[in-house]
Amino acid sequence: MEEVSGWQQAGSISTGGEGGKVHDATVRILGGWILGGRYRPGEALPREDDLTVELAVSRTTLREAVKVLTAKGLLEVRPRIGVKVRPRDDWRVLDPVVLSWHPDIRRDPDLVSGLIEARRIIEPAAAELAARRATSSDLAVIEKAYLGMRAALPTDLNACCESDLAFHAGVISASHNVVLRALVGTIEAALRSSFLITGELMRAQNKAIDAHHEVLECIRLRDPVGARRAMNQLLDIAAEDLQTI
Amino acid sequence: MEEVSGWQQAGSISTGGEGGKVHDATVRILGGWILGGRYRPGEALPREDDLTVELAVSRTTLREAVKVLTAKGLLEVRPRIGVKVRPRDDWRVLDPVVLSWHPDIRRDPDLVSGLIEARRIIEPAAAELAARRATSSDLAVIEKAYLGMRAALPTDLNACCESDLAFHAGVISASHNVVLRALVGTIEAALRSSFLITGELMRAQNKAIDAHHEVLECIRLRDPVGARRAMNQLLDIAAEDLQTI
Repeated sequence: MEEVSGWQQAGSISTGGEGGKVHDATVRILGGWILGGRYRPGEALPREDDLTVELAVSRTTLREAVKVLTAKGLLEVRPRIGVKVRPRDDWRVLDPVVLSWHPDIRRDPDLVSGLIEARRIIEPAAAELAARRATSSDLAVIEKAYLGMRAALPTDLNACCESDLAFHAGVISASHNVVLRALVGTIEAALRSSFLITGELMRAQNKAIDAHHEVLECIRLRDPVGARRAMNQLLDIAAEDLQTI
Repeated sequence: MEEVSGWQQAGSISTGGEGGKVHDATVRILGGWILGGRYRPGEALPREDDLTVELAVSRTTLREAVKVLTAKGLLEVRPRIGVKVRPRDDWRVLDPVVLSWHPDIRRDPDLVSGLIEARRIIEPAAAELAARRATSSDLAVIEKAYLGMRAALPTDLNACCESDLAFHAGVISASHNVVLRALVGTIEAALRSSFLITGELMRAQNKAIDAHHEVLECIRLRDPVGARRAMNQLLDIAAEDLQTI
């Protein structure tokens, strides 16, 4: 096997070995510092030597982490000036990995409201397309998620949320649009953040379960207008719950 | 200056030095191979030694490029197995840098139609929000772009396309939604690809100029419904032109 791939010695790029874990942790910590506001757009990072000491990592690990954060639009490397935080609009906030670095998304009201608003733009359109294009296996995924939500109510909040995520991801995936599919991770991150925000979640899920069923039935019946309307109603319920907190 | 940042010796992460150029080129070539289909989802990359020879780069440069492509969702590093291309749905196709690696977006009909469809979902909604939220400086950007398009017609195709890009980016930015703003680069890439596809572009731009003016006026007059309708009409014209090719 070692002979076949020839990548084994690459300890520092292995995600399984120690090097990989340290790399991932370094990226996550640095990313969290930027998203959390420790270093703001336009500011320079500290000296390389100081960061290697604070993070207790090698120079190589730090540089690789900087490469990844540069690829995610968070940092730019300027010769003779150093490493600077890029303007917020350049951050790849649609990348679910970037969103996962956020220390507390609830403290970022622009991001939370932007995600909710974006869901109301994208998901009804995705439901409409799903009603046109869903295959039988797409439908099976959506139905399984709906049944999973129903089975989890009213006691198993965690299982209900996971099925809820699978339901929305399933609808977007059934749109068969590669751009919308690329937004699934973002929508999931938005949903997870609203699960965190919504206090009385079980009550909310009880109200929303019928709306989920309506979306499923409209997609099954190939009713694009109905699917759009049902998804809008579902998001209305979610928005109400967010406002009552 | 060198004393302040302490990042100077980091030749390999400098975007200005030779190391930076070689790094960027390596990422672009490898990314293009994957997007262009030389290595398909599920396939393994060749041995590290073979790639360093073919690309004429050091092992360090190759590993850093793999890190970046992993961060963009194109590759995964599996200990003992090697480096594999990830499923297409995991690629960050919304990242404009990733789109820029595509050797010929026109050969990817799913991506082209997905981008056009996504524009029809996102841009009318963005125009509606822009009519509610545009500041005077947002309006100035949109108006400047419109005037730039008009001044470029009927002779300067390049300038007209650049102003067209600025117009659409300006409307999305005026939505003041951080998620939609993160899609500006994607929408620009979609527009650039339709510029490539549309043969009789000047004729198209002549027809579309009045529709651009209507979007601008509706935003200026704080007419969300009109702005949405005008953007839909503008995209109808663009879609017609794509269909007549």
